Amino acid sequence: MTLRIVEIFGPTVQGEGALIGEATVFVRAGGCDYRCSWCDSLHAVDSQYRHTWLPMSDDAVMDEVRRLSGGRPLTVSISGGNPAIQDFAPLIALGKVEGYRFACETQGSVSQPWFADLDTLVLSPKPPSSGETVDWDKFDACVQMSKGCGQAVMKIVIFDDTDYVWAKEAAARYPEMPLYLQPGNLEVDPDLPVNLEDATDRLRQLIEKTTGDGWFAPRILPQLHVLVWGNKRGV
Amino acid sequence: MTLRIVEIFGPTVQGEGALIGEATVFVRAGGCDYRCSWCDSLHAVDSQYRHTWLPMSDDAVMDEVRRLSGGRPLTVSISGGNPAIQDFAPLIALGKVEGYRFACETQGSVSQPWFADLDTLVLSPKPPSSGETVDWDKFDACVQMSKGCGQAVMKIVIFDDTDYVWAKEAAARYPEMPLYLQPGNLEVDPDLPVNLEDATDRLRQLIEKTTGDGWFAPRILPQLHVLVWGNKRGV
Repeated sequence: MTLRIVEIFGPTVQGEGALIGEATVFVRAGGCDYRCSWCDSLHAVDSQYRHTWLPMSDDAVMDEVRRLSGGRPLTVSISGGNPAIQDFAPLIALGKVEGYRFACETQGSVSQPWFADLDTLVLSPKPPSSGETVDWDKFDACVQMSKGCGQAVMKIVIFDDTDYVWAKEAAARYPEMPLYLQPGNLEVDPDLPVNLEDATDRLRQLIEKTTGDGWFAPRILPQLHVLVWGNKRGV
Repeated sequence: MTLRIVEIFGPTVQGEGALIGEATVFVRAGGCDYRCSWCDSLHAVDSQYRHTWLPMSDDAVMDEVRRLSGGRPLTVSISGGNPAIQDFAPLIALGKVEGYRFACETQGSVSQPWFADLDTLVLSPKPPSSGETVDWDKFDACVQMSKGCGQAVMKIVIFDDTDYVWAKEAAARYPEMPLYLQPGNLEVDPDLPVNLEDATDRLRQLIEKTTGDGWFAPRILPQLHVLVWGNKRGV
């Protein structure tokens, strides 16, 4: 199997969602069926960057994961782009034999049988501000496929009040799924510093809105990596 | 049962550890058997503040939790001080009937039968920089008592390299317990602003040290509430 890989980096910690703070090596896959208006990973999405993506065999990816982690098993997060447009089953099988755990983050537009092999599947349906529209039948198929995995969770990024109302409705569709909300980040230029006051202020506003509303189900988290490293790549 | 209560506040989100980001009402208990050098809650520890602690019945505490949460069940975090020097069994029983979940954070110096009634027990042994010395027999007793609870986790605050080495040894005693590390915070004056650059820098350093060391077991998290609200009380 040949994979289109944008970058492999780490070990660092997962910056967001269910595994926040966990030691992780990231495998970023190239290509995406979405074009979110506020995408923070366009270098893994837009075909103008395609020449920077490397065709790699499963073995070559696993070799690099092993090298970066010194052969000590940890969580490998398969991100993108939308990794679900490629077949990560062979990579997951290779790594699990050695004790590596696998997480994957995807918007839920494409279902894959290998979702069931994951330790953690993060389904991240995109709210209205993205400019994309969720196909809930396809999302449902992803949820169904995740039944066999370790844990499946939902993560929604909130940029504005419309997104917030939408997130509540989306969450109501899947009352059993753990839910994570995070404030949207419009400062995505890797060459510009992030304003920490603004970033923590957006988090505070989302916390106050949600708890003030009596909506206690979601966990509300920042993007830790943005607070710590700004939008620098490879951390 | 009469409890010594410093403050009851929320709903806000849990700022640290295993439940980071989760909607929570905090019940802060007064009194502590430790005097950590860098304590960030001296108003709940030092007897000079004792006149500010309220004697409250279990029913009165539960009434206030219910009022703050609008009667919607959420996580109640029992903190301190060291809450384990009081009897929270009746409060937990009252709340669980209504669907509230209970977490408790304690240093592990005093074991209580009601640990088994908790959804989450956070045992936070204090590293050398605290000036306290952990009695591991007593800590073991807490771990044993927690067997019946939903989840028991260990959280260690790291101020310096000595703490870091100590944390590794402490973690090795309990390889089965999920472990959370957080960088220490020396800016604890509620009237002074927190320097966000410094706080995120301490987090970055701890992440880099731990992952660089190939120590992948702990999750490394900040104190979110400090990033968002500084050391302001009641949030």
